[in-house]
Amino acid sequence: MATIWIKHADVITLNEHGTLLHDADILIEGTRIKTIGTVPPDTQADEIINAAGYVALPGFFNAHCHAPMTFERGWAEDLPFPRWLNEKIWVAESALTPDDVYWGAALAACEMIRSGTVGFNDHYFHMNRVAEVVEQSGLKAMLAWCTFGIGDDKEIGPGADAQIAFSREWQNAAEGRIHTCLGPHSPYVCPPEFLKKIVELAGQYDMAIHLHVAESSEQVENSQQRHGQTPVEQLNTLGVFEHRTIAAHSLALTPTDCAILAEKGVFITRTPITYMKLAMPIRTLISELRAAGITRIALGSDGPASNADMDMLAVVRQTVLLEKYLRVDPEALPGDTALRMATQTGAQALGFNESGVLAEGRTADLILVNFNQPHLRPRHDLVANLVHSAKGADVTHVISDGKLLMRDRILLTLDEKRILDEAERRAFRMVNQNMNQVREYQA
Amino acid sequence: MATIWIKHADVITLNEHGTLLHDADILIEGTRIKTIGTVPPDTQADEIINAAGYVALPGFFNAHCHAPMTFERGWAEDLPFPRWLNEKIWVAESALTPDDVYWGAALAACEMIRSGTVGFNDHYFHMNRVAEVVEQSGLKAMLAWCTFGIGDDKEIGPGADAQIAFSREWQNAAEGRIHTCLGPHSPYVCPPEFLKKIVELAGQYDMAIHLHVAESSEQVENSQQRHGQTPVEQLNTLGVFEHRTIAAHSLALTPTDCAILAEKGVFITRTPITYMKLAMPIRTLISELRAAGITRIALGSDGPASNADMDMLAVVRQTVLLEKYLRVDPEALPGDTALRMATQTGAQALGFNESGVLAEGRTADLILVNFNQPHLRPRHDLVANLVHSAKGADVTHVISDGKLLMRDRILLTLDEKRILDEAERRAFRMVNQNMNQVREYQA
Repeated sequence: MATIWIKHADVITLNEHGTLLHDADILIEGTRIKTIGTVPPDTQADEIINAAGYVALPGFFNAHCHAPMTFERGWAEDLPFPRWLNEKIWVAESALTPDDVYWGAALAACEMIRSGTVGFNDHYFHMNRVAEVVEQSGLKAMLAWCTFGIGDDKEIGPGADAQIAFSREWQNAAEGRIHTCLGPHSPYVCPPEFLKKIVELAGQYDMAIHLHVAESSEQVENSQQRHGQTPVEQLNTLGVFEHRTIAAHSLALTPTDCAILAEKGVFITRTPITYMKLAMPIRTLISELRAAGITRIALGSDGPASNADMDMLAVVRQTVLLEKYLRVDPEALPGDTALRMATQTGAQALGFNESGVLAEGRTADLILVNFNQPHLRPRHDLVANLVHSAKGADVTHVISDGKLLMRDRILLTLDEKRILDEAERRAFRMVNQNMNQVREYQA
Repeated sequence: MATIWIKHADVITLNEHGTLLHDADILIEGTRIKTIGTVPPDTQADEIINAAGYVALPGFFNAHCHAPMTFERGWAEDLPFPRWLNEKIWVAESALTPDDVYWGAALAACEMIRSGTVGFNDHYFHMNRVAEVVEQSGLKAMLAWCTFGIGDDKEIGPGADAQIAFSREWQNAAEGRIHTCLGPHSPYVCPPEFLKKIVELAGQYDMAIHLHVAESSEQVENSQQRHGQTPVEQLNTLGVFEHRTIAAHSLALTPTDCAILAEKGVFITRTPITYMKLAMPIRTLISELRAAGITRIALGSDGPASNADMDMLAVVRQTVLLEKYLRVDPEALPGDTALRMATQTGAQALGFNESGVLAEGRTADLILVNFNQPHLRPRHDLVANLVHSAKGADVTHVISDGKLLMRDRILLTLDEKRILDEAERRAFRMVNQNMNQVREYQA
């Protein structure tokens, strides 16, 4: 088995005691952490990393994103949500080919590895092409092929058979690094009969469900008018929460909703930068979720069309800053809590339960951050410096399943230069092609 | 005169038309930009920079900070403001020596250059030692030696004579890169008689004034009770605004306050990350300032004890995100506007009126950002990618007064390794010394 010996690192373990280690060694054997602390000096290793002045911590899990939307980064700026979606995003996406999805996800994979992410929870189209990127990159992922309905009968997406075929082909592929789940878009574009079918499939094939929930008060009111229930109540009634569910956003919740989500152990993913950029009010703060007993709160970047980057350190910082500001309480949401949300809770949401903690026997999903830089000194508080001053670019090494994906800022599994050029060329083609169509239509 | 020829850059000029140039050359001669666009091929230059895929833009001006507070980065986390100040910050600062101030500012200078800042507006103690750092680093700065009063007679700080002596020694020093101004802390710790003396000195020596204004509703109410006027009204009555004034924060303003600030052309500096981290409500949003006719709004990082970094790209992004979110308007504050606040308006606040725009004849204060990276592709919108995806670490070259301060991420004017070690050693000593004193006092 391949071995990596990391020497002299400061370690943020994120274990239950919040243990920090100074000048410690980490020995990785195969896909697991064998030793943390002192490694016997006569140990042989295939790779030795001198990490003096570097901080080791669990790799990030991005628990809600649409990776191929890198193609639309910067494509729809400073617009209200309906115009953002209808005039720009959907217009561009309608010209997307399966190959485009591959290259968009590859661009996202480069960006994610460069900023310390080891796993992502993706929700998009042509997911077999995203799966190829996961396989090649060495990342981990849970992949949902987005489906939705128009009216009561028209179903958009691959259909149940194709979804199950995708899942059977890719579930636990890439040495177990790929998980698949069902991806109904949301209760507001999936009629009840449609969601019932999803629940049946989830039961039959033991699959998790990843969807968008309660993104606005308006959605909640519409649901109450149409179904006599909030979105959360409706999903509960339909049986969705009997399966592992990742409810992205969940911004507008009633106390009853919170009680349901707590009782059912539903994962909520918050993507704060999207809420700020698109001006989507957070009606139920993280502190309120926690007070209601909801412990499974993960973090994500959302798609690069709305964020516009996939840097989980930016997400972590924004999560604590926004919570403190909106609660008017500087003690709200300490950095350590947010780091756990972005690592171990995300890992659990994606079904990678051995990740997210640095401990002997755990999966070797970890990153190194170079603290030998002016903005990360002095080191009074490693966690505070990491949360409030570190950036994605400070990550130097990324290890997933004991395998190096980046060494000293060099990507090892992907042809980055080719991806940058090919993805950009295709993104330019995509938007030009469609804007020409729009112009023809309008003429 | 030394010349630098930058080739093949995309250029965000920030001129009045918002001109963007693709694959353009920039020729710098001495301290000025000689040519932008096409440089004759037979031109000789001392340095040629191949900037293909890089974006050139004006360097940032950090319009409110306390640079030596790098020593307290991560030293006072997740605390309410009074405990943050009284139990941690003032305790640590009471052990600060003039040499500590030098090393703290040197650490900040490394961080600022690395993230694309060319000028900063500093407000602290022992400012002659900060001036030394400015001289050595090649940065620009406006320096205020902070003074304040306790009760009506006790004055803390260097006293009028020493302030004027400092100013006479350093005003326009370092080839004009150092400006000095007066630094009364704020109306809430400077009694009226004290402020009147400041106004007299400002008139006598033609000096600008940099102070903290209206940081909270509580301060405004206290001022109204004590003086029968808001802080802004009081400062106006005392004649402060007859001189160029930088009013940091100005978070809680009445319509009358806004009218005064607009009429008098007062510069306001906003530091949004501090407001979020310390949970300080922004009662008057930037959109409201602009609607009231206040055009001189600059941006700053504040001190690293409250932010905790000095990355102006992080400040720019946070400014637009927070404004959109709090206004519930995704169209609020486009990226281009925020970039101008962080460059040209900041430069004007500090008295460097030829900076902040890339145009022929202007001062060569500019930076290059490497867009050959996955998080900055595709390049549908250079400004959007810069504001929402770029980080300080993406800045590769920094030029101030036509002189390279950083080339390909290597600092050219400062001994970075020595500064990192010496600053950290002193910061650890400072907090340990004082915490021991606190323990002795409590025992």
